[in-house]
Amino acid sequence: MKKYNFGAGPSILPQEVMKATAEACVDFNGIGLSLMEMSHRSKEFQAVIDEAQDLMKELLGVPEGYSVLFLGGGASLEFCMVPYNFLENKAAYVNTGVWATKAVKEAKLFGEVVEVASSKDKNFTYYPKNFEIPQDADYLHVTSNNTIYGTEYLKDFESPIPVICDMSSDILSRPVDVSKYTMIYGGAQKNISMAGVTFVIVKDEALGKVSRAIPTMLDYRTHIKKGSMFNTPPVIPIYSALQTLRWIKAQGGVVEMDRRAQERADLLYAEIDRNKCFKGTAVKEDRSRMNICFIMTDEYKDLEAEFLAFALERGIWGIKGHRDVGGFRASCYNAMPVEGVKALIACMQEFEEKH
Amino acid sequence: MKKYNFGAGPSILPQEVMKATAEACVDFNGIGLSLMEMSHRSKEFQAVIDEAQDLMKELLGVPEGYSVLFLGGGASLEFCMVPYNFLENKAAYVNTGVWATKAVKEAKLFGEVVEVASSKDKNFTYYPKNFEIPQDADYLHVTSNNTIYGTEYLKDFESPIPVICDMSSDILSRPVDVSKYTMIYGGAQKNISMAGVTFVIVKDEALGKVSRAIPTMLDYRTHIKKGSMFNTPPVIPIYSALQTLRWIKAQGGVVEMDRRAQERADLLYAEIDRNKCFKGTAVKEDRSRMNICFIMTDEYKDLEAEFLAFALERGIWGIKGHRDVGGFRASCYNAMPVEGVKALIACMQEFEEKH
Repeated sequence: MKKYNFGAGPSILPQEVMKATAEACVDFNGIGLSLMEMSHRSKEFQAVIDEAQDLMKELLGVPEGYSVLFLGGGASLEFCMVPYNFLENKAAYVNTGVWATKAVKEAKLFGEVVEVASSKDKNFTYYPKNFEIPQDADYLHVTSNNTIYGTEYLKDFESPIPVICDMSSDILSRPVDVSKYTMIYGGAQKNISMAGVTFVIVKDEALGKVSRAIPTMLDYRTHIKKGSMFNTPPVIPIYSALQTLRWIKAQGGVVEMDRRAQERADLLYAEIDRNKCFKGTAVKEDRSRMNICFIMTDEYKDLEAEFLAFALERGIWGIKGHRDVGGFRASCYNAMPVEGVKALIACMQEFEEKH
Repeated sequence: MKKYNFGAGPSILPQEVMKATAEACVDFNGIGLSLMEMSHRSKEFQAVIDEAQDLMKELLGVPEGYSVLFLGGGASLEFCMVPYNFLENKAAYVNTGVWATKAVKEAKLFGEVVEVASSKDKNFTYYPKNFEIPQDADYLHVTSNNTIYGTEYLKDFESPIPVICDMSSDILSRPVDVSKYTMIYGGAQKNISMAGVTFVIVKDEALGKVSRAIPTMLDYRTHIKKGSMFNTPPVIPIYSALQTLRWIKAQGGVVEMDRRAQERADLLYAEIDRNKCFKGTAVKEDRSRMNICFIMTDEYKDLEAEFLAFALERGIWGIKGHRDVGGFRASCYNAMPVEGVKALIACMQEFEEKH
């Protein structure tokens, strides 16, 4: 039976990426050594990281004056690196969920933080809009997609002050106008790679403007200067990122990823809205294409565990919702084929007929 | 031709580790999913990290009251995390090379740093001993093995104040009395795993004694509380660490690793001391068993490039010395078979005969 992995992250990657990574772990490009045991200073790995950086730039149309970094530590580490590098006096944060809340918490250690908007009042089921942004803040921090609650802001953020965006869970799923951001960052373990590498796209000239001393490893300038190799980078996670980036390019780039995301989301939300057993949790206009959250309708609410088991028997893997929302979450990252979504829909229909 | 990888890191790992990692990247334990795409919250990965933590404790005899962590970011990140968590007023550092110097630099951002000893006067070719340790310092920071210079302190450090030791390049190569340390840490990419994971062994009760606010991700208590899973950990690097730990246990544990390290070092240093073309760089009593550094004798000093090429033709890979020392460095980590060292020795003898 074909398995479809709807897990929220670490999550589905193209089969080609898994296979190429496994091969590199045994013998890298036929040179008789595993990439696991090769120096990050070797010309072979230099070519890997160079190509990965170049492909990120190409796929996202990153303008001149920006650097692309691949770092360790996870997006959670960025939550403190962002204020370390950018917060001199005051920062503005939009609170759209657990991760945004964590980002706010770290920023408060470094200066004044204004929560300019929040959707906490309705358990983060919508994306706040039309809020005021203080002109004197150093930056506006936003989270484009909220993995737990299934909300997403599909347009680029417009702001009179520099925008820094956590795109952990929707990077490379659509075209982005990078020039509208001072920094974009995220964990790679959803749309790009296995867990263990963080991507950062940062505008070089925005750095170096805070007066505090920054520990070397937490200063983005350190990593820019050394091309992400100030210290030993996570070699295999970066190699697997390269494989995914090549795959995205071969499939037609972010335009094609965008089309597929829309196709998957249209199909699945239509079924959620039609099926008498299920209903969506996020407000329609802010529905995420990456993390599609739904629960049982009131009439069927006791059947949650049954549906999970029912789906698992049909190869639908990882759809249990986050405890903060309950129900189900079908994460549909770039590598999820439309067949996976169709299999889930068939399963939902079969379940409906059964009851 | 059999290749022997003497690279300084990322470096040789047991073939079984490479193979098991590759298999997990395709299909983890036959469940039909790659470990690359599986949630770190799955019971399958929980079992992996639990076993890895337990094996670290078992192999090193870690006493009660210590935690073992697997983090991202690299040992270089620990250089600032150590003072963040432990430096209240003053810290003592022993400077034994480039990495120790980097650790000193980060600590200076957090308080007074006393460099209690340094071997910089002789390009770090020896390990300083019998230095005075200020009783009022919060901790003494040492580096047990210096990868670049090929020096190693093979005994446990005795100190009237808490000892924190960077064991990046000699962890698990010999028994250690962990109770003599407040913390031991290092990058895993030499004796434990692929690049991308850092190990930390820390005494729980030593934490929480500084008055500063610590960013969540830089606070060891965060990671202890969550069993290294506060955020998404580097899943595959941890899995490959588990494979190496299992391998070490199956081979006979650190006692056997110790015996092998001594055997390799005895053989290779004997040849370096005998062969008229080569000479060692570190003082004899402080010679590292992990990184064996040597240069051409004056008479043959123009033949360095020739020997490198000569060795490469015979399957000896990665012995070019670090630019700070020149010459050659044969890194002999746990996974280096004695046959590799014998092949290098044969190559050195053949080269001597040729000239």
